[in-house]
Amino acid sequence: MTGEVVALPNIQADRLQFIQTEKPRSHPPSKSLVFGHTFTDHMLRIPWSSLEGWGTPEIGPYGPLSLEPSCTVLHYAQTIFEGIKAYRDEHGKVTLFRPDMNMKRMNTSAARVALPTFDSDALLQLIKKLIHIERDWIPREPGHSLYIRPTMIGTQKFIGIAPPSEALLFVICSPVGPYYPDGFKPIALYGTTDYIRAAPGGTGAYKLGVNYAPAVMPQKEAAKLGYTQNLWLHGPEHYLTEVGTMNMFVVLKKGDAFELVTPPLDGMILPGVTRDSVLSLARDHVAGTYKLPNLPDNLIVSERPITMKEVQEAEASGNLVELFGSGTAAIISPVNRIGYLGKDVHIPTGEDGMGTVSRPIWTELVGRQMGSIPSEWSVPVTA
Amino acid sequence: MTGEVVALPNIQADRLQFIQTEKPRSHPPSKSLVFGHTFTDHMLRIPWSSLEGWGTPEIGPYGPLSLEPSCTVLHYAQTIFEGIKAYRDEHGKVTLFRPDMNMKRMNTSAARVALPTFDSDALLQLIKKLIHIERDWIPREPGHSLYIRPTMIGTQKFIGIAPPSEALLFVICSPVGPYYPDGFKPIALYGTTDYIRAAPGGTGAYKLGVNYAPAVMPQKEAAKLGYTQNLWLHGPEHYLTEVGTMNMFVVLKKGDAFELVTPPLDGMILPGVTRDSVLSLARDHVAGTYKLPNLPDNLIVSERPITMKEVQEAEASGNLVELFGSGTAAIISPVNRIGYLGKDVHIPTGEDGMGTVSRPIWTELVGRQMGSIPSEWSVPVTA
Repeated sequence: MTGEVVALPNIQADRLQFIQTEKPRSHPPSKSLVFGHTFTDHMLRIPWSSLEGWGTPEIGPYGPLSLEPSCTVLHYAQTIFEGIKAYRDEHGKVTLFRPDMNMKRMNTSAARVALPTFDSDALLQLIKKLIHIERDWIPREPGHSLYIRPTMIGTQKFIGIAPPSEALLFVICSPVGPYYPDGFKPIALYGTTDYIRAAPGGTGAYKLGVNYAPAVMPQKEAAKLGYTQNLWLHGPEHYLTEVGTMNMFVVLKKGDAFELVTPPLDGMILPGVTRDSVLSLARDHVAGTYKLPNLPDNLIVSERPITMKEVQEAEASGNLVELFGSGTAAIISPVNRIGYLGKDVHIPTGEDGMGTVSRPIWTELVGRQMGSIPSEWSVPVTA
Repeated sequence: MTGEVVALPNIQADRLQFIQTEKPRSHPPSKSLVFGHTFTDHMLRIPWSSLEGWGTPEIGPYGPLSLEPSCTVLHYAQTIFEGIKAYRDEHGKVTLFRPDMNMKRMNTSAARVALPTFDSDALLQLIKKLIHIERDWIPREPGHSLYIRPTMIGTQKFIGIAPPSEALLFVICSPVGPYYPDGFKPIALYGTTDYIRAAPGGTGAYKLGVNYAPAVMPQKEAAKLGYTQNLWLHGPEHYLTEVGTMNMFVVLKKGDAFELVTPPLDGMILPGVTRDSVLSLARDHVAGTYKLPNLPDNLIVSERPITMKEVQEAEASGNLVELFGSGTAAIISPVNRIGYLGKDVHIPTGEDGMGTVSRPIWTELVGRQMGSIPSEWSVPVTA
């Protein structure tokens, strides 16, 4: 031992090995697609170990993982993931929407649970190769896409609680239809006061598996009461934080102006890519650098805490304009009702389910995603 | 459909199938055992599905699980576990320590993350069969045991966030040596103010995988500062909650009496089996129904909140007698120092590492576990 520090290999895209499936499957009809049930023919796997760093990336047939019963992810929930959509435009061009944001967030998530970090560009390059191979799986119908799920799990064969000595990064792809195939359908939220999604000093700002399992039971309870999703509240003030697995926005009337409010990234909120996109579009509109058709000019964009009391008061005074969730799956999800402490707060929605502020922003976002509106957020996937 | 409700099968111990390994491994020398690294020849598996209930239990060769890359546990951390120790006494009799407590807690954990619940007695019967088959793996040396790890994971092949439609319960066994092979070694804790383990409305009272992955990075940070474990604090008052992955006790001098304090089961504290055992022994002693040799008679047993301020004040006034963690792995783990807001709180420990209250309780606990002191807590494992 000389004390010399030898850097372990990072992900090396040029070492990719491709093993083509011998059993390609037929693509199901786009109309039959249910989110997250159908997977494509191939997947990407990249192993990591603390002794050897990142190993050889392999794109091979989609199929089961062989995991030791002692491995970390099965006992201590050492798992992180991302969700990215690949779109195919009318000319057959395949694009990803702001994938750099997902790569950056995945590295942040990895560090939070002591999983290995990695070269974002190298992983993105490999994901593009996988999508290119699977490009015929992307449905051609409007609003359809290929949902990309990068995941990293701790695979060390040892049930001590420690940074894992082995990990596996894998990426699977699932063709998906539009979230609202028959037009927007506003959802009802249950203002959840018995359970939390996150707390200060916790993991709410990271895309970790651990944020999801505890939410299933509260969601079931909300569903029993007739609500679609939980509205996660925080603290005795009942600050609004997130909606189900989405970020959230409220629109308030302030005199002649509209205020678009979303809770700040205070460590409890997932830094959503769609959230960031909504804020950027709204701010560019306000600054005049990029105007959105039909979006009101007198718009105030606020990242600030907002309580249920303020939402109730806005309802009472007729100043509650809109409330919606934002996320990769649904893009924008309008809300028409919040069950809160035994009463319902009612929220206006337009005839098409959308509202004054959400409609023009949604139109722009979808245009940029599908490629009908050119933008730097749309990143081409080439061979 | 007649609307008839057909009860799905629960775990049926009498349907057990046993497939003996063809490659029995040699048992490593007891001295070489490191916690959680060595596993025995066989494992128990019981599949579950929402359509068919609990399936055929199988004890078969220890080996890898084949899991679909889309399965719930790998994405959304749907995993729960338990830790139980099997002991072999000097006459070769094999016993478990209060396994009914673990079975009950595992059912509570399952319900919290929408995994299936099960018949505790049936699972315990199957675990006993597994231990009986693996009995020669239990090291004969004092303080050694077989660590039993029941685990349940969501295995549904679908990346939607929902109650899993498929699950797998499995049990693996690991021979372990004593936590402190060379006598008690008091540990130093880092009073953690930047990270939390649990919060009201969260999952701290359940033995879920999700409580563990987020603790690894704070533990690494504490280790860098020279502390062994995190002391998890809660709220602006810095209430003491847990120590690393253990429950915790503080002993204070109150005039002529000793007060044994542990935080209450307020939804943030894991209801530990060792915690419950320490409280029971102390209360029986105070009540006079079962006296422990050498334990002070003037003992007050308190489940109540305690703040760092109270611990600091007790140190300053010379009334801080002991602080220790309790858990299945270490049984009792004395603490001699807490790093808190830049200063160290020093805690007395006896010459042997233990203290006035912990020593007689530990002696009784270990006696009951190893079988030298007969008790109902010790449950025989028979063929």
